[in-house]
Amino acid sequence: MRKFRVIGIGSGHPEQITIQAINALNQTDVLFITDKGSDKDELARFRREIIERYAADRPLRIVPIPDPPRDRQPADYQATVAAWHDRRAALYEALFREHLQADEAAAFLVWGDPSLYDSTIRILDSLRIEFEVIPGITSVQALTAEHRIPLNQIGAPVQITTGRLLSDNPPTLDTVVMLDGECAFDSVDDPETHIYWGAYLGTPDQVLISGKVRDVAATIQQTKERERRRKGWIMDTYLLRRPRR
Amino acid sequence: MRKFRVIGIGSGHPEQITIQAINALNQTDVLFITDKGSDKDELARFRREIIERYAADRPLRIVPIPDPPRDRQPADYQATVAAWHDRRAALYEALFREHLQADEAAAFLVWGDPSLYDSTIRILDSLRIEFEVIPGITSVQALTAEHRIPLNQIGAPVQITTGRLLSDNPPTLDTVVMLDGECAFDSVDDPETHIYWGAYLGTPDQVLISGKVRDVAATIQQTKERERRRKGWIMDTYLLRRPRR
Repeated sequence: MRKFRVIGIGSGHPEQITIQAINALNQTDVLFITDKGSDKDELARFRREIIERYAADRPLRIVPIPDPPRDRQPADYQATVAAWHDRRAALYEALFREHLQADEAAAFLVWGDPSLYDSTIRILDSLRIEFEVIPGITSVQALTAEHRIPLNQIGAPVQITTGRLLSDNPPTLDTVVMLDGECAFDSVDDPETHIYWGAYLGTPDQVLISGKVRDVAATIQQTKERERRRKGWIMDTYLLRRPRR
Repeated sequence: MRKFRVIGIGSGHPEQITIQAINALNQTDVLFITDKGSDKDELARFRREIIERYAADRPLRIVPIPDPPRDRQPADYQATVAAWHDRRAALYEALFREHLQADEAAAFLVWGDPSLYDSTIRILDSLRIEFEVIPGITSVQALTAEHRIPLNQIGAPVQITTGRLLSDNPPTLDTVVMLDGECAFDSVDDPETHIYWGAYLGTPDQVLISGKVRDVAATIQQTKERERRRKGWIMDTYLLRRPRR
């Protein structure tokens, strides 16, 4: 029987991968690769490093999945993403038929954790395929580890949201922002709110900045622009913390 | 120079530990053990398993840290926890002086990830000690992986909260509940809200239940009671999902 696994490989630090993920990689026959967008080359490089370090002896066939074109600033975000999922699902099915034998094991390698802002689980679900999920360290965890901070204040809640949503909804007590192509933290006007920001977390290029948003917002903005020019892409995340009285 | 590390070891599955955590364990001289509460024996068993599997050849000295008594139902939760942290910090300092040589490496093993509802980072901070944090897979990630579900709906936010807080604040779109000693999901009255519940995640005792809250709340409650009686303790977590129209 064919086997499908969605494997979280962490957010860029090659040692932030679990034994479970390594074992799964070493039981894989075909690796489906879903490079997309601006972090394409970096994900390819990181994946190569992971395979060379931890599954060098495994004969893996690698099948790239082309990324259907997608409107990145759609009027109706959800409907557009759902339509893109449908196109992608059809593509996956065709590739599985073409490349995967009856008794082989397929795997998808996912940045961070497969549960967080990734579409692989949803697409496999829509194909009614049985699969296994292997958790991975997210950039949120790399961020708090590198800043050496707790994610929550004592007994308090935490929100995880996107740059897109933050612009319309002011942050709560502690808010993690992911997928912020712009600088949505600019919309924070509380003078006491701190930001803990990080880019390329866990990699040699890692940059960390923290302080009150009003004090460091401009520096983060300049850093984002500079790094994006230098490397051609950026992957960053941050925590906004409003200290409780 | 002395070195301190806070190491996340995952939420119960012995393969859900990272290479980084294993490497750190193998550079440790003294392991400070902070068993507490009802999961004491299980944490001890799990820690032993981790050490035997991944650091069997390392001569580790293990120093248990006694848990100062603590009011579990205080009138002022934050103040009580803060006072408990202070007592704990004083204790840590005394134990470091007694057990740790000048050039040795100390480590704390933490369930899940050190950033999430754990006090080790806060206590070391209050002692103005330099330390390194090594992320670990949380029970939230084990939960979504075992249920094979995304944590977020498309482009939507996620809240992480505690059982204590949920009773007063109705859940948002997607809400993860941790540290729920009772059955706070009972307070959910939206008929469409789903619950994805799991206990002893990643262990041979794992139990998973999912469905509409109104349909499965009683089953979860009975299961919690039964398992708590059987094993003497329970560690569970869940996601409440209100499907977006």
